[in-house]
Amino acid sequence: MDDKIKEKIMKMTGKNRDAVVCSVDEEGFPAAKAMFRCANEGIKTFWFSTNTSAIRTGHFRRNPKACIYFADYMVVRGVSLTGTMRVCDDAETKERFWKKGDEKYYPLGVTDPDYCILEFTAEKGNYYQGLKKCLFAVSEVG
Amino acid sequence: MDDKIKEKIMKMTGKNRDAVVCSVDEEGFPAAKAMFRCANEGIKTFWFSTNTSAIRTGHFRRNPKACIYFADYMVVRGVSLTGTMRVCDDAETKERFWKKGDEKYYPLGVTDPDYCILEFTAEKGNYYQGLKKCLFAVSEVG
Repeated sequence: MDDKIKEKIMKMTGKNRDAVVCSVDEEGFPAAKAMFRCANEGIKTFWFSTNTSAIRTGHFRRNPKACIYFADYMVVRGVSLTGTMRVCDDAETKERFWKKGDEKYYPLGVTDPDYCILEFTAEKGNYYQGLKKCLFAVSEVG
Repeated sequence: MDDKIKEKIMKMTGKNRDAVVCSVDEEGFPAAKAMFRCANEGIKTFWFSTNTSAIRTGHFRRNPKACIYFADYMVVRGVSLTGTMRVCDDAETKERFWKKGDEKYYPLGVTDPDYCILEFTAEKGNYYQGLKKCLFAVSEVG
């Protein structure tokens, strides 16, 4: 893969970029919502914090198939990553990603049963720029 | 539904707003891509122009279940619409949405077999703002 494209993918999926997270609902319809990511490791793993009771959390428990999408709208550039989403409600993971200010969302603190972490693991990706597109394996980008 | 929310939904889904369009692929994974809309009628019907040969067009031919998502990232506000996507490759629909400059994407012109229109019909929606969310029927907004 071209180094310039690799660099763009890293930048577009990097820190401070919101992702549109897609699940499949109980009737087989795709469902999308923008989410803040807590952290990521390259383009392989992304973590999102959310409510255990959220509709989306239920989707992923039933069906872990997932897609996350990052867009630079102005220049018609996008990266989609396809993979699986795991719902993590164990104490260790919840502590690992807990941040100051999270009480606003989870009033009972780090042990709030309505707080959980979604862990996305990417398998493959697609990079779009104008009329071009480029399918890639996550291992090619890192 | 609150008139202010209704107004925001109309604004967020209105002209010049890119949508993230979601399909379900042949292996059951959700797939997302930002697309320009050609036109819309309220929040009920949206049209997108695309390549007949595009992966996404194939998804919708096999499985019309679809979701389109509009986001105001900065203020954590989003609207998702769930419904079905129809692939239209009849001459009448292709002519209806053809625009000057489309030759750039479809070199053979309005009859280019690689040009088609995706017609999305919304059934229900979800409006997100901060921690609030609001499920709605499309008929409530218009």
